[in-house]
Amino acid sequence: MADSNIPNDLSYPDLDAFQSHAKALREHLRLTPTQAWESPTKDRLVGTDCHPVLKLELFQKAGSFKARGALTVVSRMNEEEKARGLVAGTGGNHGVAVALAAKTYGVDAKIIVPKTINAMRLQAIKDLGAAVMQVESITDVLDMMVEVAEDEGRTVVHPFEGENITLGTGTLGAEFMEQIPDLDAVIVPIGGGGLASGVACAVKQANPDCAVYGVEPVGAKSMTLAFQTNTTGVLPGGPKSIADSLSAPYSAPYSYAVCRKFIDEIVLIEDNDMRRAMKILFEDLKLAVEPAGAATTAALIGPLKEKCAGKKVGLIICGANIGTKTFFELIKDI
Amino acid sequence: MADSNIPNDLSYPDLDAFQSHAKALREHLRLTPTQAWESPTKDRLVGTDCHPVLKLELFQKAGSFKARGALTVVSRMNEEEKARGLVAGTGGNHGVAVALAAKTYGVDAKIIVPKTINAMRLQAIKDLGAAVMQVESITDVLDMMVEVAEDEGRTVVHPFEGENITLGTGTLGAEFMEQIPDLDAVIVPIGGGGLASGVACAVKQANPDCAVYGVEPVGAKSMTLAFQTNTTGVLPGGPKSIADSLSAPYSAPYSYAVCRKFIDEIVLIEDNDMRRAMKILFEDLKLAVEPAGAATTAALIGPLKEKCAGKKVGLIICGANIGTKTFFELIKDI
Repeated sequence: MADSNIPNDLSYPDLDAFQSHAKALREHLRLTPTQAWESPTKDRLVGTDCHPVLKLELFQKAGSFKARGALTVVSRMNEEEKARGLVAGTGGNHGVAVALAAKTYGVDAKIIVPKTINAMRLQAIKDLGAAVMQVESITDVLDMMVEVAEDEGRTVVHPFEGENITLGTGTLGAEFMEQIPDLDAVIVPIGGGGLASGVACAVKQANPDCAVYGVEPVGAKSMTLAFQTNTTGVLPGGPKSIADSLSAPYSAPYSYAVCRKFIDEIVLIEDNDMRRAMKILFEDLKLAVEPAGAATTAALIGPLKEKCAGKKVGLIICGANIGTKTFFELIKDI
Repeated sequence: MADSNIPNDLSYPDLDAFQSHAKALREHLRLTPTQAWESPTKDRLVGTDCHPVLKLELFQKAGSFKARGALTVVSRMNEEEKARGLVAGTGGNHGVAVALAAKTYGVDAKIIVPKTINAMRLQAIKDLGAAVMQVESITDVLDMMVEVAEDEGRTVVHPFEGENITLGTGTLGAEFMEQIPDLDAVIVPIGGGGLASGVACAVKQANPDCAVYGVEPVGAKSMTLAFQTNTTGVLPGGPKSIADSLSAPYSAPYSYAVCRKFIDEIVLIEDNDMRRAMKILFEDLKLAVEPAGAATTAALIGPLKEKCAGKKVGLIICGANIGTKTFFELIKDI
């Protein structure tokens, strides 16, 4: 794919835009709490002089940060688009968030999901009143989504690409910087870059001296590849990670360009690093998170440990839609 | 045991005392967040018109509300007592909290624990710098505690009895009522009554119209028996519940008298009710709690469901010191 797919004249929301948009969505979103990580376990892992603060976005409505982007996109559909309805294709938290956004704004929603979708998420989507269409694989999901959009005139709500998604996820970064203004660094997980683009964009504009680190699973490093080649496109071989929420099958131009501008560095972690971090978050911080929700903790105690020594570091805990059985399967041998 | 062990001239802290004491402890305690429980699962369990709000005290320092009482007691020891050190006997969260309080105020601590103590808590106590003495059973713990107190002149920090404990735990009730002033009811777990006495005392003084319900495991109903007989004493046969944190071997006069004055009703729950509630808290609210931490949720969806219909109900989520293995053993067949 050529460089030409990267926008030259990048436009992105400024801090005022994030803050006023957050106000507009206030009644539909939760102001999620932060939690300082202070414990002997923390001291052992990263030292007494490193001060991590968790942004508990797993407590967001619909169980993840995805509600911020989905509500933003749906709130900005025009009346005609709203009347025609929307469609989203997803195996994950995006589907739950889009169903919530559709319900919030009274828009008819069709969510295409693969047969492998976890039962909790499927139930949550149905509970929110969206129509669900199950197809075989994640590739079929995307094909069917396009087909439904064309046949039925529905608006596609993309899981991570577009200025409205970045505007939505940026409210998380702006909110975090208001809660903890003196962060030296923020670590954010990267799937397709929807979350990371918004958070990085808001954090850097709130404080240009605050470092922003992205973290990707080594088996789903589409953004790392985009950084290396300055092009976006399909991840060769497809994503292979326990973190389904971070397993974007491709990178996309807008989220890439915003990440490129505002992220200082991306680090990679292994699946087992996330497993270990899930166990630590459970036992030391009482949080039940999915693998993606443990990615920033894994990065802090792993590849970013030295860079974060002596610093006040914000960790985005992005989501937690996972059942007890899956959770235990993932951590039992760690 | 005769009625005479119940104080006739009951003194207890007023709301100002709770609030100014909370200020005095501010730098040593966390202001724990609240979380509204809004989800289709909640709607199914208690209806759309019941609005539960969780007080996430599991995020308190040392992993439970126990830090509030322990810090209060230790902060009020005189210099001579501080120089002689303290002793506590416990199989649970109290030991971790006392170790934290001792470290905070520079007091030498000896914690007597049974061999059955869970590994996480044992490690936490050691990490906080307290000396640990392991004995065979929980009965030996109490004997050894008295022996050490007499031999070494150490001050005993009781796990639940005394006006300072109630003053400490009352800061939790006062804090919750400041965060959510319009609660119609608060549900609080009862072990020995240290938590319940303080919370009920503060809540009822903040709003006399707010109902306060206590909840005990059916296998550890020492306070229910005290309510029935208006006497305190040893629980016949000893406690038998998965909720070790609620398994007080006896009731005691001061905490009983305060509970009696301010609690409207105590309800009983089975161990399996807590198991189910642990799973719900994990899957729907992303919280990893010990059985005691799930007791109020179990009471709401069980015996208090009808009384709480249409109400805004505060649930104290009191603690979460549990390892992953124990957690999954408890919920796997539910």
